[in-house]
Amino acid sequence: MKKIAVLGFGVVGSGTVEVFYKNKEALEKKAGDELDIKYILEVRDCPDERYRDKFTKNFDEILNDPEICVVVEVIGGLKYSYGYVKSSLEAGKSVVTSNKELVAAKGAELLKIAREHNVNFFFEASVGGGIPIIRPLNQCLSANEINEIAGILNGTTNFILTKMIKEGMGFDEALKIAQELGYAERDPSADVEGLDTCRKICILASLAFGKHVYPDNIHTEGITKITLEDVKYCESMNSVIKLIGFASKRGDDIAVMTCPAVIYEDSQLAGVNDVFNAILVRGDATGDVVFYGKGAGKLPTASAVVSDIIVAAKSENSSKSMHWEDCGQDFIIPYKKLSNKFYVRAKADRKAVESIFGEVRFLSRDGAPDDECAFVTHPINEAEFEEKCSDLNVLGSLRVLEY
Amino acid sequence: MKKIAVLGFGVVGSGTVEVFYKNKEALEKKAGDELDIKYILEVRDCPDERYRDKFTKNFDEILNDPEICVVVEVIGGLKYSYGYVKSSLEAGKSVVTSNKELVAAKGAELLKIAREHNVNFFFEASVGGGIPIIRPLNQCLSANEINEIAGILNGTTNFILTKMIKEGMGFDEALKIAQELGYAERDPSADVEGLDTCRKICILASLAFGKHVYPDNIHTEGITKITLEDVKYCESMNSVIKLIGFASKRGDDIAVMTCPAVIYEDSQLAGVNDVFNAILVRGDATGDVVFYGKGAGKLPTASAVVSDIIVAAKSENSSKSMHWEDCGQDFIIPYKKLSNKFYVRAKADRKAVESIFGEVRFLSRDGAPDDECAFVTHPINEAEFEEKCSDLNVLGSLRVLEY
Repeated sequence: MKKIAVLGFGVVGSGTVEVFYKNKEALEKKAGDELDIKYILEVRDCPDERYRDKFTKNFDEILNDPEICVVVEVIGGLKYSYGYVKSSLEAGKSVVTSNKELVAAKGAELLKIAREHNVNFFFEASVGGGIPIIRPLNQCLSANEINEIAGILNGTTNFILTKMIKEGMGFDEALKIAQELGYAERDPSADVEGLDTCRKICILASLAFGKHVYPDNIHTEGITKITLEDVKYCESMNSVIKLIGFASKRGDDIAVMTCPAVIYEDSQLAGVNDVFNAILVRGDATGDVVFYGKGAGKLPTASAVVSDIIVAAKSENSSKSMHWEDCGQDFIIPYKKLSNKFYVRAKADRKAVESIFGEVRFLSRDGAPDDECAFVTHPINEAEFEEKCSDLNVLGSLRVLEY
Repeated sequence: MKKIAVLGFGVVGSGTVEVFYKNKEALEKKAGDELDIKYILEVRDCPDERYRDKFTKNFDEILNDPEICVVVEVIGGLKYSYGYVKSSLEAGKSVVTSNKELVAAKGAELLKIAREHNVNFFFEASVGGGIPIIRPLNQCLSANEINEIAGILNGTTNFILTKMIKEGMGFDEALKIAQELGYAERDPSADVEGLDTCRKICILASLAFGKHVYPDNIHTEGITKITLEDVKYCESMNSVIKLIGFASKRGDDIAVMTCPAVIYEDSQLAGVNDVFNAILVRGDATGDVVFYGKGAGKLPTASAVVSDIIVAAKSENSSKSMHWEDCGQDFIIPYKKLSNKFYVRAKADRKAVESIFGEVRFLSRDGAPDDECAFVTHPINEAEFEEKCSDLNVLGSLRVLEY
């Protein structure tokens, strides 16, 4: 019999307990042992009668219980989770988490502690919700050199962009609906400003390239400046706007960024709508592989947590975690050195645009004012692009990415 | 140092050796041990000078060499592979294969032998080429009850159908191009008649539902009867024709079939073109997850083989294989008992159609002869559908599947 503790009984925590007990028999068969949840750590007083005997408010009870071999951290944030996870690993317990903030901020350190104590630190649920991506990336693609990862990693922003693209709804209205449906939080900034996507691409990049990529070092733009005018112009060039996190190998260094981008309709990422996520992985042998599914939500995320629990329970006394090094951030190319094609909408005439950018592809939309001009540049260095834009009354601009 | 033997040096075999030596250092890091290929079994005289010292024509040399811990079977077919794989497992060597025919025909037996000898039998490359699907299905989705799997599992037929849909090319011409490009074999029947897809959906169904599904029991239709007229009618209803293998849980039983089907354009499977494959897995907790990528080809398939080699080398003396039971075929619902919507093209007038099928949705296409009539039925039992069709001059029919 292997005993588990779940830290936190919010959306993911209660989902984890639900999925665990629903599939207990099948899970035990897969784990090759009996399993049970012994504790649920939760500050509220018994929020669910069914698990009355499992609730505790005292983490030390869990930490000091030698029966507990797997600790599931689904509290979120860093404040409590970091200390709980660290001391659990140091006490020789494996940890499973869905906490992308924790993994993005402390992954290298926690993986090292896990290895030193011959236990596991798993986080399949931290990226892509119910989409299996962390383990396939680590294991099944192990025979590949990964050259590029690009993903639609945040369901909330993808829902908002889909409303804007498919229904011509403005950003504010689409955000309001997302909040009403429970897809966006009351303070939606971590989603709409791109931070959530940034954390996730940092985790994927760390894993794929073997070096910890910290979110603070990554250029991150959200979707709050996207307008319906931009959506229309993109439509005229058979493309859509998606919030993309990408990490790309360039020699020994890597480029990592989070930004809204123009994606052509024939890309496998263009058709990913609503709250769905998709992650494209480009390997030297496999070519492009795409993983698609629900990137968030109670049950999809819980299902990823529970599948990690099984592997952790099965792998007691053996360290199967992936690992990556903590070795500075010099390998990350400053974003201003990168080159991209840009879509630009400006208050300008075509002549002025051409005098600054040279030959460009002009775009059109119904009902555009006479003094509005939209175009796509040739590939151009980011720093140079910013400089050129300072000579123009730019209303909006987006990178054009080809996947 | 762990030593490997590769049986067969055809497309996948030579690709495996190539990918192995290209990434040797990274692979050894992942396997936690030095690795080398000691033998390549090949009937031809030294087809590659670089590996001169590894070639052998004598399988017993491999079987009796205690240094060999992983045997890679990439010969294909059953004639030699079955005996070689069986005796390798019985000799306590793990086996990695890309051979879908072998896994579909003998999977349950070989998995049992592997378990009895505490070794592994892995076959990630047998379905979906370089797309990681077998291991994610087994492991990452372990917290789900799988309700449905549906896939575009054969690149050759998907290439042909894409040519027909996108370029209005006839079947024969598209097949010829596929052959010229090396996508189709000189005898293309296993692909175009659906047998290859059938074997793959049998493997996925066996894994997902835990019971061996044998190809002989599965209703299988290919794409040779699809015409450009059908393609046009489907276009008029915003759908495309794809060769689909599906397995679907219905209570305690399952429905499994391979058939060309009408798929609506908003499905994640509809946009899968050319030689690409995609597999949709519907779990009770995750919802729909889709895996997309190159389903065949030398390097993608080799990359899946090599990633299995790593896990096999890492897992010596522990049986990590999945397993499924061999327990008759009574759980497979006879296809004539299934219900579907059907697309039908017939030489008939609308009145006759309605008198037989009741209310239907009629379709139109440019240049249709006056006596041609195409329509979509309500969901109807397969046996009943066949009976009704006998009263009509049916030119073509397809199931309409919604994913």
